[in-house]
Amino acid sequence: MNYKVVLSIIGKTLIIVAVLMLLPMVVGIIYQENNYLSFVIPIAIALAGGIPLSCLKSKDNSMYAKEGFVTVSLAWIVLSIIGALPFTIAGEIPNFIDAFFETVSGFTTTGASILTSGQVDNMSRAHMFWRLFTHWIGGMGILVFVLAIMPANNAGVMHVFRTESPGPSVGKLSSKLRFTARILYGIYMALTALTTIFLLFGGLPFYDSLLLAFSTAGTGGFGIVGTSAMRYSSYIQVVLAVFMFLFSINFNAYFLILIGSFRKVFAIEEVRAFCILVVVATLAIAIDLTVQASNLFAHFGEALKHSFFQVTSISSTTGLTSYDFDKWPSFSKAILMILTIIGACGGSTGGGIKMSRILILGKSSASEFKSLIHPRAVVSIHYEGVALDQKTERNVRTFFIIWVVAVALSTLLLSLDPFADLFSDFSATLACIGNVGPGFGAVGPTCDYSGYSAFSKIWLSFIMLTGRLEIFPMLMLFVPRTWRKG
Amino acid sequence: MNYKVVLSIIGKTLIIVAVLMLLPMVVGIIYQENNYLSFVIPIAIALAGGIPLSCLKSKDNSMYAKEGFVTVSLAWIVLSIIGALPFTIAGEIPNFIDAFFETVSGFTTTGASILTSGQVDNMSRAHMFWRLFTHWIGGMGILVFVLAIMPANNAGVMHVFRTESPGPSVGKLSSKLRFTARILYGIYMALTALTTIFLLFGGLPFYDSLLLAFSTAGTGGFGIVGTSAMRYSSYIQVVLAVFMFLFSINFNAYFLILIGSFRKVFAIEEVRAFCILVVVATLAIAIDLTVQASNLFAHFGEALKHSFFQVTSISSTTGLTSYDFDKWPSFSKAILMILTIIGACGGSTGGGIKMSRILILGKSSASEFKSLIHPRAVVSIHYEGVALDQKTERNVRTFFIIWVVAVALSTLLLSLDPFADLFSDFSATLACIGNVGPGFGAVGPTCDYSGYSAFSKIWLSFIMLTGRLEIFPMLMLFVPRTWRKG
Repeated sequence: MNYKVVLSIIGKTLIIVAVLMLLPMVVGIIYQENNYLSFVIPIAIALAGGIPLSCLKSKDNSMYAKEGFVTVSLAWIVLSIIGALPFTIAGEIPNFIDAFFETVSGFTTTGASILTSGQVDNMSRAHMFWRLFTHWIGGMGILVFVLAIMPANNAGVMHVFRTESPGPSVGKLSSKLRFTARILYGIYMALTALTTIFLLFGGLPFYDSLLLAFSTAGTGGFGIVGTSAMRYSSYIQVVLAVFMFLFSINFNAYFLILIGSFRKVFAIEEVRAFCILVVVATLAIAIDLTVQASNLFAHFGEALKHSFFQVTSISSTTGLTSYDFDKWPSFSKAILMILTIIGACGGSTGGGIKMSRILILGKSSASEFKSLIHPRAVVSIHYEGVALDQKTERNVRTFFIIWVVAVALSTLLLSLDPFADLFSDFSATLACIGNVGPGFGAVGPTCDYSGYSAFSKIWLSFIMLTGRLEIFPMLMLFVPRTWRKG
Repeated sequence: MNYKVVLSIIGKTLIIVAVLMLLPMVVGIIYQENNYLSFVIPIAIALAGGIPLSCLKSKDNSMYAKEGFVTVSLAWIVLSIIGALPFTIAGEIPNFIDAFFETVSGFTTTGASILTSGQVDNMSRAHMFWRLFTHWIGGMGILVFVLAIMPANNAGVMHVFRTESPGPSVGKLSSKLRFTARILYGIYMALTALTTIFLLFGGLPFYDSLLLAFSTAGTGGFGIVGTSAMRYSSYIQVVLAVFMFLFSINFNAYFLILIGSFRKVFAIEEVRAFCILVVVATLAIAIDLTVQASNLFAHFGEALKHSFFQVTSISSTTGLTSYDFDKWPSFSKAILMILTIIGACGGSTGGGIKMSRILILGKSSASEFKSLIHPRAVVSIHYEGVALDQKTERNVRTFFIIWVVAVALSTLLLSLDPFADLFSDFSATLACIGNVGPGFGAVGPTCDYSGYSAFSKIWLSFIMLTGRLEIFPMLMLFVPRTWRKG
């Protein structure tokens, strides 16, 4: 382990976070909330730690996958600790473990909250800004941001980039990594601005529009009111649904649109499959709601709207809610649960297993099955127009197997907590590892995670990080060999 | 597809079943129940179909994996249809779909029942014998039985044997397949006799002892009374628990004991891991019950007995119950659910994913993770003392992936049925694909599957067969290419 390289990148990240924390502080000053001290202290701590660390120079500048994994995992944990401080110092979330859970949930764009609906309504504007801003920071990845603005003459940072970007493979949009990061952040900012503008047209104040845009862009899911998106007008609900969908698409698609290759967008297998999934799921739930729960909605259009909202919200792993879907019939709930597992496209800000991995798993299983019937036939797998290399295929399969084991073990651990029943524990695990947020039962859309014990909250924070960083990086922290010098 | 070879083996199987059906008929005559006609008709049908089919001669005697898969799948479906007839003809289970479900549940050694507790208590002795006997027939595999007693000069029957025997690989105990089959059935019969004797010592009548031994030996789980094993004495419960455990061990172990290689038994990784799992699970549940549900049991010993019984019952995938474990705390239920998924050892009569596959999945994931850290290191996997070949590893991973997808899709399909809540549907799927039988909620130990719709029952029958035959054979039936001639 090359500690110096790791620590120096973490140091740079801390400085960036200190700068980003100035924003909520300014918000507090604008609204005369007198709570700037709760940001000044964490900023001071971040700078005091960050500046000396970022100055660390190592003779050996080499960085491998191991260092990439550890850097990202540690950076995210450190960030969440620093990011939780404003809530506790200001007394908005007095218990530090609760604040840590909420901040991890923010950065990982999960949106699982320990705040009751009343607490959400009463939060100061500065802290609410910070709470939603963590979604936006975490969506694209904080280290990607560091890469985008800081000079780094180190080929190894590719490992950092690869670790933080969702999906089984990284599309390098430019031959220079720094430019790729800048293009991604450019698209991200433009789409966020667009979301804000559309929400403004719906009559929401600028503050509300911007914060909801953060939540949507990062596919986070924290609401700024206790009722999430239930009380908004149909216009705003549809705008949110459309943008949640747009942010769950592989960002390569937007790059292709930017350079004018519209046709190529529809050639992306992952995007095509994801669109089909969203359409089919929306229709299936709308029909199920109309047939099996005719008392809930006045007409098919109403059912269709809520179905579309919930499908885009869950499949993008945002988790905003327009209706208490825990009251929907089993079939609709089962579909939402499967969408929670599948998640968004790779290369988006969404979570879950990712549509690309699902496609690779499907194709590799089908080819394996074929080779069972014709043992001597050579079956090669094509994905996105090229032959899939064995390494990616193996990696995706391993990811999936460890993912299933993690879900089972996490459910087992949570079952020790008397707070919720077994199904809720299972659902909480899926909602957290998939970075969705709301689940069913005790963690349903009108409930929150506050009832879990401190141990369960720390565990679920770990699970959220595991989901956001796609399993291997967090696992790496528990391998003793990782920490050996050299 | 070489139809003649497939049909001829199915014909032979039908003849054997006709012969086996004479047994319950005799039981009916002994107890003067006057219901022999309900067996005579199915026997006549089986012979009328079986004799001409078994006489089919093909010039081309070749048999490949495809033919093996199709033979076994079709044979099991045909058997279940014939086997269901006695129940419907006699009016014991008037609805044919119900009878089919019950018979599939019997042959696949699942033990999921559509009979209410009262219906179980009132069944005729002949039909109860047949109901339990299907467990015993299905446990070791009916085609293995055909192999054991019929001459077959066809190298391709290895595919049949491999398809019907549980686990990722087949241990050939003898160079001749027919001898392997005979040895297995010999061990099976001897252990069944031993179970019967031990139960007789507990004061149970011979009829009850023999039938319970069938249920235990096949790791089936049908009870002969409506209360399953809840009302039996502690002695009988412990005997059942010990034998359920013994029947879930890889039968290679008994062969090694027979030839005097005691030491080698403990060298079998799968057996060692399975024993550890059973001990750890038993203790964990016993402690959980004592701490979190102190009102249920008088003392730790009582909790330990029920914990041991339920752990061996579920991990062997039998499904007999000594206590309504649906009332146990979440942690205990979560453990039982994980045991349902893992299942027994390969090469036993138990179901589930199998301990051997779990070990291979674990080892291959660990090695893949290592190669992520050290991309250039060559990591080879050793299992049961030898290097694991890539083909088996790939096969096991594919099995697992398709298994997970099957569970998700099955839960989705069942959720259309208004009978049960989503968690019960999920639990029913796990209990059926794992061939366990009882699950949680609406399909808990004191409930039954009768409330599901006809469609759901047919679907669950398919899922039970898919679980027993380990996925690929049943899947094969849906590939159009399978049915092409040549």
